[in-house]
Amino acid sequence: MSDKNAPIGVFDSGIGGLTVVREIMRQIPNEKIVYFGDTARVPYGNKSRETVTRFSRQIVRFLQTHGVKTIVVACNTASAYALDELEKEIDIPIIGVVKPGAKAAAQATRNGKLGVIATEATIGSRIYNQYIQELNPNVTIWGKACPLFVPLVEEGLLQDPVTDEIAKRYLSELIDSDIDTLILGCTHYPLIRSAIGRIMGEQVTLVNPAYETAMELKAMLTKRELLNTDAPGLGSNQYQFYVSDTTDKFIRFANSIIKYGILSAKHVNIEEY
Amino acid sequence: MSDKNAPIGVFDSGIGGLTVVREIMRQIPNEKIVYFGDTARVPYGNKSRETVTRFSRQIVRFLQTHGVKTIVVACNTASAYALDELEKEIDIPIIGVVKPGAKAAAQATRNGKLGVIATEATIGSRIYNQYIQELNPNVTIWGKACPLFVPLVEEGLLQDPVTDEIAKRYLSELIDSDIDTLILGCTHYPLIRSAIGRIMGEQVTLVNPAYETAMELKAMLTKRELLNTDAPGLGSNQYQFYVSDTTDKFIRFANSIIKYGILSAKHVNIEEY
Repeated sequence: MSDKNAPIGVFDSGIGGLTVVREIMRQIPNEKIVYFGDTARVPYGNKSRETVTRFSRQIVRFLQTHGVKTIVVACNTASAYALDELEKEIDIPIIGVVKPGAKAAAQATRNGKLGVIATEATIGSRIYNQYIQELNPNVTIWGKACPLFVPLVEEGLLQDPVTDEIAKRYLSELIDSDIDTLILGCTHYPLIRSAIGRIMGEQVTLVNPAYETAMELKAMLTKRELLNTDAPGLGSNQYQFYVSDTTDKFIRFANSIIKYGILSAKHVNIEEY
Repeated sequence: MSDKNAPIGVFDSGIGGLTVVREIMRQIPNEKIVYFGDTARVPYGNKSRETVTRFSRQIVRFLQTHGVKTIVVACNTASAYALDELEKEIDIPIIGVVKPGAKAAAQATRNGKLGVIATEATIGSRIYNQYIQELNPNVTIWGKACPLFVPLVEEGLLQDPVTDEIAKRYLSELIDSDIDTLILGCTHYPLIRSAIGRIMGEQVTLVNPAYETAMELKAMLTKRELLNTDAPGLGSNQYQFYVSDTTDKFIRFANSIIKYGILSAKHVNIEEY
């Protein structure tokens, strides 16, 4: 039986998962978090199921050395490829970002026409289709891989004509399909939400799985009586950040996403786990 | 003492190094080659010196299990960050792509104004500046990191208005600096050579280190009496390709770069080396 006071483990291929951390901090501010970003091996979205699963398994082993009470896979690609395997291998609850996003989208659509934008890996896995159609078999889903969005975000081109041009190309077939709901199926995409929203038009609901995942996490912890009801004391090291590459660039980027000042992060040689 | 008939080891973070392999195949067609592409951990160009050196060391250990007579670091970032360390650690000759490219550029310039485009890591290391100024202290060098070029090439946007627009932005300060020679300091960049050439204008000489490296390799092997003078027999497995991710995507891309039909590649769990 895990301890309520134990931290929540969260991981991502790099920095995108911090958009999930931000939501967890907002929705359940008493929780401690241990975050791992695989910055030495990022990105995952154009790599194979085997590789992403092997990497994810190492990270889960690392997080377990911190005595986490649950793990959040804050990466759509790792959720798509590795979550089922990981679930079988560990005895603490583990949740991904795909199922909460799929559920919210299935509830949001009015005309039964849904779009998903994500990495090549997530789209190729058809996992959003699978979850959504389990909830509602009458929904039609269009998936579109947007491989340039991550590098454009990481280059900081959040408001830029080049990003708009690339987004127009990726999104045109979704517009033609008359969808009324679009899942931002990669943790980087909420950072260009305004460009995507402008192109899709205001009649299209954008679903951010980061927000839904934090809600699902809170509900799961409450149900299992694992929610931390005590505010952490001063100096309790509430948020800890680990990365597989060096820490300097991560700290800069993290501070642009999370308003809580991230003063430090630690390097981990993840291949040893 | 190595055997003339032993293969040449070549490695890169992924597939860009195949532009170097292509030149080696052209210039010294009798040689056997063992290529390793670190497709599970690609890219290297935005990662730290420590990480790139750790990865490169594992790959060198892997290549040595194939009894290679020499190693070519067919990646500018790994050449910039790891070559000096690797050289100290092994007893076979090892060459990178930076020094041959620097030498060719120092010889090509007429007005003493040189540009280098490369990854953030290579530009940040200032290694091209160092080598060029050792050869000719009167040369002035402008470096420019072009982090979107690799994802644009990997997305296949070789002839595209978006690539042209991004290239114009990256290259504008080099044009303003009146350079007459530009080093394509990343193995992906020769694949968008025509866009770069159009923007820079025909008065600017483009230096492709892949070509220069194959020349340097041939000269080095000749001097050390390691050049393979016998054509490999039929069925001799002249070219072997290994990758750290799964092989399917690599084989497709490799066949678009190298006209010799690459029928197979093997997966290696590189973290175990």
